[in-house]
Amino acid sequence: MALNVHHIGIAVSDLDAAIAVYTGLFGATVEHRETLADQGVEAASLHVGPSRLELLCPLGPDTPVGKFLAKRGPGMHHVAFEVADLAAELDRLRADGVQLIDETPRRGMFGLQVAFVHPEATGGVLAEFVSNG
Amino acid sequence: MALNVHHIGIAVSDLDAAIAVYTGLFGATVEHRETLADQGVEAASLHVGPSRLELLCPLGPDTPVGKFLAKRGPGMHHVAFEVADLAAELDRLRADGVQLIDETPRRGMFGLQVAFVHPEATGGVLAEFVSNG
Repeated sequence: MALNVHHIGIAVSDLDAAIAVYTGLFGATVEHRETLADQGVEAASLHVGPSRLELLCPLGPDTPVGKFLAKRGPGMHHVAFEVADLAAELDRLRADGVQLIDETPRRGMFGLQVAFVHPEATGGVLAEFVSNG
Repeated sequence: MALNVHHIGIAVSDLDAAIAVYTGLFGATVEHRETLADQGVEAASLHVGPSRLELLCPLGPDTPVGKFLAKRGPGMHHVAFEVADLAAELDRLRADGVQLIDETPRRGMFGLQVAFVHPEATGGVLAEFVSNG
């Protein structure tokens, strides 16, 4: 069971421009910025008070976020839920027959352990589970 | 400037089914449920810990959320940012030349004061400002 919404993932086509929008319009502050070549994104984590936005800019068109942008345009990409024990959570979901993208935790951005649930399981929302451990 | 992410708005085609998904997968709890005929939706506000999801189910195809579902399918619809003084926030945005959907606050769901910013201003994300007062 999730503790909270850890972040909202947003696909953008220009990371600097998006950071300027979110700082200017919503008072967001940049927490971290990182290029992850293996995931094909440059990402920035922003705080809005206690809430967190994750801006995702593809490194090229032939990446997951690049394909998302080509198909749907920039906008909301996923919702991440924080859990205390990601492996136990995946066991629970698997036992319930929930369709997973990641069967086991993998390293996500910013050193988090992450796993994605298939949008078919949620009614169209790409959901991520994250844990710090 | 925003205090936090107040909620994530999610368009759904079956409200009861969506509530079952979010309670079962993420441990969400239903805070409030309301039909708003003038806005063409039946809505449910759910908590995940301190975070909040707002599920929006259209009352018919010729409503804003009905048209969204027809065009994009179910999924993430908007992000709502909480502000202390909505009228002052709209004055600030207008002075900065930000494109607004609502020039003045209007009554939103659950008694909140709300105003939407045009997705053109944010790079594709439909953003809502909300305040309690």
